[in-house]
Amino acid sequence: MPQLLPRALASQESVFARMSRLAAQHGAVNLGQGFPADAPPAFLLDTARRAVGTADQYSPPAGLPALRDAVGADLGVDGADVVITSGATEALNVLALSLYGPGDEVLMLEPVFDVYLPQARLAGADAVTVPMTLDPERGWFLDPGALRVAVTPRTRALLLNSPYNPTGTVFSAAELTEIVALAREHDLWIISDEVYDELYFGDAPTSLRTLAPERTFTVGSAGKRLEATGWRVGWIACPPGLSGMVAGIRQQGSFCSPTPLQAAVAAALPVARAEGFYAGLRTEYAARMELLAGGLRDLGATVYTPRGTYFLTALHPQWRAETLVAEAGVAVIPGEAFYAQHAAPAGLLRVAFCKSRDDIGRALGRLARAATPKVNVP
Amino acid sequence: MPQLLPRALASQESVFARMSRLAAQHGAVNLGQGFPADAPPAFLLDTARRAVGTADQYSPPAGLPALRDAVGADLGVDGADVVITSGATEALNVLALSLYGPGDEVLMLEPVFDVYLPQARLAGADAVTVPMTLDPERGWFLDPGALRVAVTPRTRALLLNSPYNPTGTVFSAAELTEIVALAREHDLWIISDEVYDELYFGDAPTSLRTLAPERTFTVGSAGKRLEATGWRVGWIACPPGLSGMVAGIRQQGSFCSPTPLQAAVAAALPVARAEGFYAGLRTEYAARMELLAGGLRDLGATVYTPRGTYFLTALHPQWRAETLVAEAGVAVIPGEAFYAQHAAPAGLLRVAFCKSRDDIGRALGRLARAATPKVNVP
Ligand SMILES: Cc1ncc(COP(=O)(O)O)c(C=O)c1O
Ligand SMILES: Cc1ncc(COP(=O)(O)O)c(C=O)c1O
Repeated sequence: MPQLLPRALASQESVFARMSRLAAQHGAVNLGQGFPADAPPAFLLDTARRAVGTADQYSPPAGLPALRDAVGADLGVDGADVVITSGATEALNVLALSLYGPGDEVLMLEPVFDVYLPQARLAGADAVTVPMTLDPERGWFLDPGALRVAVTPRTRALLLNSPYNPTGTVFSAAELTEIVALAREHDLWIISDEVYDELYFGDAPTSLRTLAPERTFTVGSAGKRLEATGWRVGWIACPPGLSGMVAGIRQQGSFCSPTPLQAAVAAALPVARAEGFYAGLRTEYAARMELLAGGLRDLGATVYTPRGTYFLTALHPQWRAETLVAEAGVAVIPGEAFYAQHAAPAGLLRVAFCKSRDDIGRALGRLARAATPKVNVP
Repeated sequence: MPQLLPRALASQESVFARMSRLAAQHGAVNLGQGFPADAPPAFLLDTARRAVGTADQYSPPAGLPALRDAVGADLGVDGADVVITSGATEALNVLALSLYGPGDEVLMLEPVFDVYLPQARLAGADAVTVPMTLDPERGWFLDPGALRVAVTPRTRALLLNSPYNPTGTVFSAAELTEIVALAREHDLWIISDEVYDELYFGDAPTSLRTLAPERTFTVGSAGKRLEATGWRVGWIACPPGLSGMVAGIRQQGSFCSPTPLQAAVAAALPVARAEGFYAGLRTEYAARMELLAGGLRDLGATVYTPRGTYFLTALHPQWRAETLVAEAGVAVIPGEAFYAQHAAPAGLLRVAFCKSRDDIGRALGRLARAATPKVNVP
C-alpha cells in the first residue's frame, strides 16, 4: 500500500469524541463534551421544520444572504464582511488555511482548545503556545509579558478565545487593549474565537473586533448560541474587504453550510435577541454552575469559578478523568487534553454544566459514592 | 496589514457560484450549477422534520453510526470503513489532506471538476492533469496511454470521476481495470468520485472499489442521490482499516456533519433503494436530457450524449457562456471552467438538465430567439 502522510498518521480521535464514546460505553453521566442537554428553542425548531422542503439546495459558499445579514446585524458589522461556515470548527480551519502556512508561527494560549493545534499543522504552520498561569488564589490569568516574548519574526497571527474554554476566563478590555497593541506593533492577524460570546456571568465580554477592526477575524457559532451544536452553522466576521478571500478558501471545505439550517438560524437570531433568550440561558447556566461548583467543593475539589462558557475547571487530589469514567461513571475532560507544549496543572479537570440539573445531581452523587472508602465487612 | 498567503490570494469564487449569481442578476434561466429543480422526496423530508428537535447535538466526527451502517449496506461495505462528511466536497478535501502533501503529485483528468485543483493546492501537492480527447464523432474518451506516461516517481494518487462531470462519461469495467493495473504497478491511492453513481442512462457503472478495494476511497453524496444538494451530507468508503485516520483529519474540517440531516439520510437510504427512487430519477432525467439535447441540436449545437450525471456537453459556433447569460438570459457553464493545464475545446459548454421541463423549454425558446437575426425595419 502507498505510504501515509505524517500529518495523516498524527491525526487521531479528539478527546471529546473519545470521552463521549467512553461515557456511552460505561453508562457514565457525560459532563465531558460541550453539548447542551436542553433542546434548541422552539422558535429555531419551527423555522427549521419549515425550511426543510423549501431551502434544500446549494447556497452561496459565503452563506445565505439573509444569514450573513442577520449575523452582521447581531454583531454590528456589515453582512458583506460575514462568511458562514459549517460550525466554528470549520471557521477556525478556514482561517488557519487562509492566514498561515509553512514557515509561519501562530501564537495561542495553553490550555488550548483541541482543534487549534492540529489545524495549524494541517495549514503547515507552527503553533507556539504561551501558558496561562493558574494561581491557587487568583485562579487563571495571563501574564501579558509572556505573550510579548513569544513573538518572533515568523509570527503571523494571534489566536485567542474569550470567554475561554476551558478556563472560563473573560479577558478584560484592558488586557485586550494590550494584546491589540502587540498585534499592531508586530503586524499580526488576530483570530478571536468568541463562540461563547453570549455565555458570561459578569459583565458582557469585550469583542476584540471593536478594538482592532482592521485585523480581527471574529469566530462565532450558532450551535453554541442556540443550543444546536449538531447543526453546523458558524461564522467569521472578517476585516472589511477580506470576506471574498475567506469564502474562496471556505468553498474548498464543505462548499456551503446546510441550507435549511442556515435559513432557520437567519430567522432565529433576531428573535433570540428580542426575546431575551441569551439572558435566560445565562441565568439558567449560572444556577447550574453554582450547583455543580458547590457540589464539587463539598467533595474536596478546588473549583475555579468561570466568568463565561459552560465549563468549569477544578482540581482534586484523587480524581483522574480516565478512572472516573470507568469507576465512578462520570465523564469529564482531563486537563492534559488541553496541553501540548507545557505541563498541565496536576489533577486539572474540565467539567461541563450545560447538562441537566438531574445529571449534575446524579454525577455529584456518583462522585460522592466513589469517594467513600469501601468498608470491608469482615 | 499583514500579508496574505499566495494560496489565499489565489482563492476565488467558483464558476458555479459566479454563474448562479449572474443568473440571478440577469433573471436568466439557470442551466448552470448542478442542483435539481425538484424537491427532495417526501420520505426524506418527513424524517428530517422529525429529526429536527431530537437529533440536534454533536455526532461523532466519523458520522452517526446508523448512517455509516446505512451507507455501508447501500455500497456493500462494512459501516466501520465509512466516514461521513459535509458533502462530497469535504470528502474530497479530507482525502487531499490525508493522502498528498508538499512534493507529491496527484493525477487527474481534464476537464476537471472545479474543486480538485484548489484542494490539491491547499494540501500543498501538485495536480497533474491528463486531457480527455473530444472526438467529433466518438465523443469523449480517455487514451489510457496518456495516463500512463503522466505517472512520475512523485505521483501518489489518481483522482477519477465516473459518471463524469462534465463529460457524462461512464468508464467501462475494462477501462477501469487498466487504470487499476497502473495504480497497482506504481502503488498509487485511488480516489473515486462517484457522486453520480445512481444517475446513469445505460448499464450501471462499475465502482472502482470493487476492482481495487485495498487502495480505493469511494466518494459519495446524499445531496446528489436524494436531490438535497444543500444538506451537506456525503461519505467516503475507505479501504479497510483507514477510516480512523480519515475521520481524524475530517474532524478538523467541519467536526461532524449536520446531525438531524444525517439521521434523515440514514433512514432514507434503504427506502430510496426499496422504493425504486433512483430508477425513477433515471427515467425522468433521461427524458429531460432528450428534451434538452434535441432542442440544442435543432439550434445547431453539437451535443455529446451523456451516459451519466445530469449534465451534457455541447459545442456551438456562436454561443459563449458569458454572453448567453447576459443577452439570451440562459446560464450555462463555460467549458474553460473545467480546464487549467490544457486548452478547452473551442465553444464547449456544460448544460444541466436537472432543471424543470418548463425551464428547459424556456431556455430553448430564449436561445432560439437570441439566434434569430434581428430584422431592421426601415
Ligand atoms: C472555544 C471553542 N471554539 C470552537 C468550538 C467549535 O464550535 P462549533 O461546534 O460551532 O464547531 C468549540 C466547541 O466546543 C469551542 O469550545
Ligand atoms: C463530480 C462531483 N464531485 C463532487 C461534487 C460535490 O458534491 P457535494 O454537493 O456532495 O459536495 C459535485 C457537485 O457538483 C460533483 O459534480
